[in-house]
Amino acid sequence: MNKITFTIATMALMLCSCTFNSNNDMTENPSIKTILNRKSVRKYTEQKVEKEKVDLLVRAAFAAPSGKNLRPWEIIVVDDTAILKGLGEQLHNAPMLKNAPLAIIIAGDTVRSSYWYLDCSAATENVLLAAEALKLGAVWTAAYPYDDRIAVIKSFVPMPDNIQPLVVIPIGYPLDPNKQPMDKYDESKIHYNKF
Amino acid sequence: MNKITFTIATMALMLCSCTFNSNNDMTENPSIKTILNRKSVRKYTEQKVEKEKVDLLVRAAFAAPSGKNLRPWEIIVVDDTAILKGLGEQLHNAPMLKNAPLAIIIAGDTVRSSYWYLDCSAATENVLLAAEALKLGAVWTAAYPYDDRIAVIKSFVPMPDNIQPLVVIPIGYPLDPNKQPMDKYDESKIHYNKF
Repeated sequence: MNKITFTIATMALMLCSCTFNSNNDMTENPSIKTILNRKSVRKYTEQKVEKEKVDLLVRAAFAAPSGKNLRPWEIIVVDDTAILKGLGEQLHNAPMLKNAPLAIIIAGDTVRSSYWYLDCSAATENVLLAAEALKLGAVWTAAYPYDDRIAVIKSFVPMPDNIQPLVVIPIGYPLDPNKQPMDKYDESKIHYNKF
Repeated sequence: MNKITFTIATMALMLCSCTFNSNNDMTENPSIKTILNRKSVRKYTEQKVEKEKVDLLVRAAFAAPSGKNLRPWEIIVVDDTAILKGLGEQLHNAPMLKNAPLAIIIAGDTVRSSYWYLDCSAATENVLLAAEALKLGAVWTAAYPYDDRIAVIKSFVPMPDNIQPLVVIPIGYPLDPNKQPMDKYDESKIHYNKF
């Protein structure tokens, strides 16, 4: 056997093996990395978010668990610049909406479920993680439980009385793609079998 | 060049290329797949959950966002079989705890944050997704807002008055590793720029 080609074959197989092994190392698990790397991103480039990515963000929201499987959520995708600008101007906790190419509002049906806000929180976290996975930046800006913020949102996106927005999630490509997550690990908050 | 070894080298390189390409296809993004594949798992094998995995589940919880970055959570890791059995017998919504090798209780500091339950919901979703990523099975069993369930949990794991458990998450290796997620996608709940 030709030595050079044998070496090439061996190196190529080693490279493959490396790739597969790194997927088996649980600290390198890509989903764990996404969870640990998620960060609040408040500054975006002007790049639009592709429809394929928007669809995946929405699918991620629907994949959340819900109490008694009631699925009390409604998903509002906002890419109308007038609405984004208006919300950003009037929601003092979310000025970054003025410069975001996209926002997803997660709202809940308060009649359908009395704990819609827990289910919608899980759906929100799914959207934030999906954004991180797709190299987008996003941040949880709270609507509920603030009546004034809910009123502002409903003035731009009218909704039935029983539908309450939990969050507005501004989303875009991060201006700083190298922003690092905060390390919030805190051993003093871990308890084993007793508090 | 020897034809056979050349063919082996080419095939090996194509296999590598395949692996890398599939990671670039966003519908094949491993984190998106984890989000879409998460399911409620209520039956477990007797296999213990390795300490390395328990640590990653806990790290995932800490990586959640929280309002004003207050981090109002406390994480209780339960692997004491007497506690698991007792909780499973007395929590009528969570009988699977009797046969689970592990549970993680996520609790919140009601004094530290008035919306601790939203932050703790995001932390809970992180744990559920981390479990899916690590080939474990888990399920959200609600404590809050049920006073009777909270009392049961506090009888087995006494906590200060200001600490309220949001969930008990039973975790183990799934008895049916092929269980499929529900498809909860619902186009009627997606709205574009107006409800």
